[in-house]
Order: sequence, then structure tokens, then C-alpha cells
Amino acid sequence: MDKKFINVGLIGYGTVGKGVVKILEENKKIVLRKVGKAIRVKSICDLKPIDKPKLYIKNFKDIIKDPEIDLIVELVGGYEPARTIIIDSLKSGKNVVTANKAVLAKYWDQIFTTAQDCQKSIYYEASVGGVIPVVQGLSEGLASEEILEIKGILNGTTNFILSEMTKNRVSYETALKSAQKAGFAETDPSFDVNGIDTANKLAILSSLAWGGWVKVKDISVTGISGLDITDILIAKNFGYDIKLIGSAQKTKNGIDLSVQPCLVSHDHTFATVENEYNGIMITGKDSGDVLFYGKGAGQLPAASAVVSDIINLSKFIVTNTAGIVPDVIYDKNKKIKILMAGKSKTSYYLRFAVVDKPGVLSKISGILGKYKVSIASLSQPEICDNNYVNIIIITHETLRENLKKALKEINAIKSIVKSKTVKIKIEG
Amino acid sequence: MDKKFINVGLIGYGTVGKGVVKILEENKKIVLRKVGKAIRVKSICDLKPIDKPKLYIKNFKDIIKDPEIDLIVELVGGYEPARTIIIDSLKSGKNVVTANKAVLAKYWDQIFTTAQDCQKSIYYEASVGGVIPVVQGLSEGLASEEILEIKGILNGTTNFILSEMTKNRVSYETALKSAQKAGFAETDPSFDVNGIDTANKLAILSSLAWGGWVKVKDISVTGISGLDITDILIAKNFGYDIKLIGSAQKTKNGIDLSVQPCLVSHDHTFATVENEYNGIMITGKDSGDVLFYGKGAGQLPAASAVVSDIINLSKFIVTNTAGIVPDVIYDKNKKIKILMAGKSKTSYYLRFAVVDKPGVLSKISGILGKYKVSIASLSQPEICDNNYVNIIIITHETLRENLKKALKEINAIKSIVKSKTVKIKIEG
Repeated sequence: MDKKFINVGLIGYGTVGKGVVKILEENKKIVLRKVGKAIRVKSICDLKPIDKPKLYIKNFKDIIKDPEIDLIVELVGGYEPARTIIIDSLKSGKNVVTANKAVLAKYWDQIFTTAQDCQKSIYYEASVGGVIPVVQGLSEGLASEEILEIKGILNGTTNFILSEMTKNRVSYETALKSAQKAGFAETDPSFDVNGIDTANKLAILSSLAWGGWVKVKDISVTGISGLDITDILIAKNFGYDIKLIGSAQKTKNGIDLSVQPCLVSHDHTFATVENEYNGIMITGKDSGDVLFYGKGAGQLPAASAVVSDIINLSKFIVTNTAGIVPDVIYDKNKKIKILMAGKSKTSYYLRFAVVDKPGVLSKISGILGKYKVSIASLSQPEICDNNYVNIIIITHETLRENLKKALKEINAIKSIVKSKTVKIKIEG
Repeated sequence: MDKKFINVGLIGYGTVGKGVVKILEENKKIVLRKVGKAIRVKSICDLKPIDKPKLYIKNFKDIIKDPEIDLIVELVGGYEPARTIIIDSLKSGKNVVTANKAVLAKYWDQIFTTAQDCQKSIYYEASVGGVIPVVQGLSEGLASEEILEIKGILNGTTNFILSEMTKNRVSYETALKSAQKAGFAETDPSFDVNGIDTANKLAILSSLAWGGWVKVKDISVTGISGLDITDILIAKNFGYDIKLIGSAQKTKNGIDLSVQPCLVSHDHTFATVENEYNGIMITGKDSGDVLFYGKGAGQLPAASAVVSDIINLSKFIVTNTAGIVPDVIYDKNKKIKILMAGKSKTSYYLRFAVVDKPGVLSKISGILGKYKVSIASLSQPEICDNNYVNIIIITHETLRENLKKALKEINAIKSIVKSKTVKIKIEG
């Protein structure tokens, strides 16, 4: 390549996009040393005009058509036009960098088949774990491993909210407002708080780990918006924090996939992952546990990961070798066996709000016993809602479908306030 | 490439070498999925005959000369013939995988200049942090970052020994024997316990981070062999563990490089890095702290990292693109400014063994004051050697050269047992 620059077309000029331009500007010397050529943002597309009018292009198609552009950075987010931008860019012979987990998880098949067919590269390190290089860590660093388990705090917004609730003993609603004020939650935070964002990231990591396509619909997802501060306070007294954890575990009968709030013991590594930080533990057969930790949200951490991708990809563009080695070896025909949600085995924290105590305990334990849900401990903490007494049960490992049946029967007991029954997975 | 296999020549068939053959054998399917071709160990060289006589080659030169071999795995360790194997392999058009931190740190310049000149690749992920993909994490994952600091528990042997001393309240000698029994320390453990192994790894990470060649001689190194169980016990009472930490910090006056035992607070992430595990924290300007954690020693974790390198490199060999993009962009002419050891600023834990207490305290504090070493706390713990009273001083941040002068003067006080004076850095 005898051009003087690597020419970048940036589509989507929000917080992260602005961060990308800033870092490329400030770290010119680092870029030059690593790539051997300068990287220039030639065009920027956004819905509305931007602060750099000379670079502004109104229609993203004009960027994709531009023969001078070597690399397209897609920071639009969401499904469309992000999917079109990525697919059309690859088909037009451009390499792509994206931070968009939603589009990757949903169109994994189409995106990587297109990349392979067009012999172009798509880098997406920023799509999972913010600045943490876990995509590369999993797909290359642990390339030799039979992956047994992936477990992670993968969403900065929800982790920030849970940290706020825990530290300041405030309700979910109050903590959400703090997160929005601090810039860690969007005005409409539903994708984050409902666990969908975590599920997208877990789908990406699982697809990489097991070499097929794990879909979001394969994952049993529970968010944090229903979490009651009561449970956070009770858990704390038991020596646990509550974290939203995405988990993919290889079992004999398929991959057990879930996103749900979990109790993690105060001496578990995940308990130290606070605020907007993410932590991802990958367990391989020979490697054992490998942990990656860092900022999972925020303008500069996210932009930093995007710029690293731009740099790494540019090294191949400079030598005309980008895309020759596929970034994801995706086999269309490989089916990944998924464990049915009901067959998942774990231990649980259960809370029952009871109006009238005498007799109810023996009824609860009777029903649990009937469904082979074995009780590890039972207590009645001082923290309680008005008018109710809380009964806390920690179970031994149990089949989810059995617990479901038991809870249905328990909730039918007259002195149980059904709407207040809580079950939370215990992670360890 | 139309060959059926990637042919590997393995030089050095010790613990890790055997692990590499085992993993390649067991994970054939994973390899085939990721590389698109099978990887075959064609020849193995070792000083003595091996359990696979058909593959055995006595002279490594015959492996390097073999035109069928695509990739040489150097697991000999040490400086020679490791250096010759690596250099001659590159010059003969072979790509190289190595786990040898000593040879890399010492011949960084020659090795990467040769690789660049010959347009061949050398991968060395296993040289730092065992199975943890920190080399790639630093050089690619954080490619865009201005690196401010690298700090790590980088040696499994010493960390295992320190964990044993702390958990079991035993002497260094007893803990060393346990480590040897568990397979985590060699018969001659001097490279590990003297801190040289950590220094080699720190030199590699620093060279990568700042794009020049940081030499081991630039690093101020103190090992753990002089550590007294007394200090571990006292530190524990203060809320600290003692860990051997390699640290490289960017300051206005150059990179501050050291390997030394350090006090780390029980709530510091490093305090949770136990036994043979390693933990490396990299701080970038935009990324903030990024932590990597996993097994730093052991046959399979080390072999796993080597096999991952073999897989990743083979993907490029298959497409005839290995070595076109240099793995380390090394600029011969870039000088990295190193901070003089005496100018390093940190706070310290000091212990003085005192025979006769009255008067000595004011003398000590007088001398410290004279050299601007400011005292944060002073105490006399109950844990003591026979015949001596221990005085513990925690200092505020101080210049190392000032402390050195002060200690010289304090050690000259008659009632101080000079040989028992201890200074340990406080890491945080």
C-alpha cells in the first residue's frame, strides 16, 4: 500500500464516536509507531450536522462508496441501519470496526459469513467488556482451550445501579437516577436493566467459545428492574452481594445459558467488581480460571477499545493482508447443543413474605421436600417489610424446573404474599 | 499452502513440551476448526532420547534445516542454545513460538530485528503470566493506549512460597520445600526467588508498552529469599499481605522500574492473587485499570499458552501471511528514559530490631526527619524475635535515596541490630 494514510470513515458520531476522534488525535505518535502510517478520519456520518463540517457526510452510503476509505467504523448501534452498514461495507471491500453487540448477536451468521466470503475483516473488541480485551483473550489467547465456562459481569450500567443500591441502601429507582446522572445509564435504560445487553454479550462470547452461533433466544434472561432493596440488604447480612451475571456453562446435556441477578459471596472475585467495571471469568480445561477486569462503560474506555481495533486492523490493511485470515472461524453447519432452561442446576436464595407464621414453615418445607428441593439453611432476618415477616431459605443445588413447581405450590398458600416471593441464584 | 499439515518442530521436551504434545493431541478438533488444517508435531529434539523415538531428532540444527517444518517451538529455556535456535530458525524462514522470557529480555533487540528483517513471526505469549493472555492484551488489546503503569505478580513460584508462608506461618525455607514438592519450584530456584524471572517479564512488558528495549539491568531488583516470617506476620496484623511485585511506572523523569516484595492491603486486588496464580494490572490514560489474572505456573497452563500461540500463528502460516505484519514494532533507535533508582518515590514499611529501647526512638525519628522521611505511623507489635523489640515505622511517600541515607545512619546506632533492619515498599 503506497498511500500516505489509512482512511477511516466513521458512521455514528455520538459519545463513543467523539472519543474515537479525540484519541486518534491525541495519540498520533502511538498510532504511527504501531501502524507505520498515520490514521486519518476522512469522513464522519451522523443524523445531524456535526462540529467538524468539513468531514461531515449526510448519507452513510457515500462513505461506503468512497474508494479512498479503507476502514469503516460503525458506531450507530441497534439493528438497522447498523446491519446494512456492516454488510454493505464488507461487500464493498471495506474492513469494519464495530462496538455493536446487538447487531453482532442477532446477525452473527450473516455478518461472519459475509466477512469470510468477501475476505474482509470485522473487529469488534469494544462490543464486549468495554476496554477489556476479552474477545481477543477468548478467541486467541485461549485458542487452544476446551472452554468449560464463561461467567461475567458484562454490563456497566446495571453494575453501577447495583453498587449504588448496595452502598447507599437506596431503591432501584433512586439508583437508576444516579446512574443516569453519572452518564452510565441512558434515558431509556431498558436494554441494560432487562439484561438484554448482557445476553447479547454472552451470546457473542459463547459463539466464539464453542464455534457456532449461540442466539440470545437460547439464553434465559432476568434483569434487575424487579430487584428489591430488601434482598440486597438481607444478602449483605448473609455475606453476599447481588450482581447481574451472564453465565454459560458446558454440561453433558448442552450449554447452560442464563443472565440473572445472582448472590456472590463477599470473598468471590466478582464481589470486588464495582460500579461501571466489568469482570469476566473464563474457565478452560487446561488453563483453569482466567479473569479479565476493567471499565465496561464510559466514553474513553469504549473509544479506546475501538481505536485499538482500528490500529490492529490497520496493520493488516497496510500490508494488504486484512481479511485473509478470518477473524471468526464460523461454521454455518455447526449446531451448539443448548441445555433446556428447566434442566439447569444451581442453589437458590428464596424469600417468602408471610402474613401469619404458625404452620406455614412446615408447609413450605414440606412442598420443597416433595419436589426434591433440599434446604441448606432457613432463617428469619430482622430486616422486614411492614406487615410481613420474611422467611429466607438457601437451597442446595436443585433443578430449576423442580423449584418452579414448588414455588407455584408455595405461592398458593394463603398466608404467603405471592407477589413478594423472590428467588435468586447463588453463584458462589 | 497446499500441504495437509502444519509441521511443528519442538525443541526442548521437558514438562511444558510434553504438555504441548498432549494438548495438541487431545484438542485436535479444536485445532482443526480454528486453523483449517491439522497441526502435526513432526520432530522433537531433546538432550536425551524421548518416549516418542520415531519423532526424536538429536541435533536441533536438523530440525531447523528441515524444509518441511513450518514452525519451531523453542522450549529449551535459558540463554543458549535458545538464542541460536530462535535466530537461526528465523533466518531459515521458520516462524517461532517460545515461552522463554530470559532469552527475550536479554536479546530483545537482536530477536525482533531479525524477525522483522526475515519477515517471520515470533509468538511468546507463554513467556509472561503463564496462561494469561497479557502480552497480546497489552500490545493489541490496549494498542491505542498511552500506558502509565504496569504492575504485576508475575512469578508463580514466589507467589506460591509467599502464600505458604502467610497461610501456614512457616519460614521461607519450609515454604520453598513445599513449593518444590508441589512442582512449583525448581531444584535450583534462584532465578525465581531472586526476582530475576519477574524482572525478565517486566522488561518484556515494558518494552512492549513503551516501544523500545527496557533491559533487566534498568530494573532495581530485590527477591524474596531474605524475607523474614516476622514481617509477614506483622504485616498481616496491619492488614497487609506481602507479594513480590514487578512495577513499571511512567514518571516525568523516566520509567520507574522495580521488582521487590511489597505490602499490599487486604482489600487490594493483588491480595486475592494466591498460590501459583499471577495478576497483572495495566493502567492506560484512557482505559484506566485493566486486570488480567490466571495461572502463572504449572504444566498445562503454560503448555496451553504455547499451543494457543501455535494455533494463532498457524492461521497465518496457512495463508502464507505469517510475519508480514511484525508482531513487535521495534524501533532500534528509540531510547526509553529510565528513572534513576534513587529518585523513586514511595512509602515504606520499616522494621528495626532494638536491644535497648529508651532513647533509641527519638534518635530514629530524628534521623528520619533529617532526611525528610516523614513518619505516618509508629508501633511496637507484640510479635517479636527473642531478645529484640521490634519497632515498626510506616513512612509517607519518600525518595528512595533519602531513605537509604537515613537507614545507613540509623543502622549505626549502637542499640540497633543492623542485620535485622528491614525496609519493604508499600504498594497500596
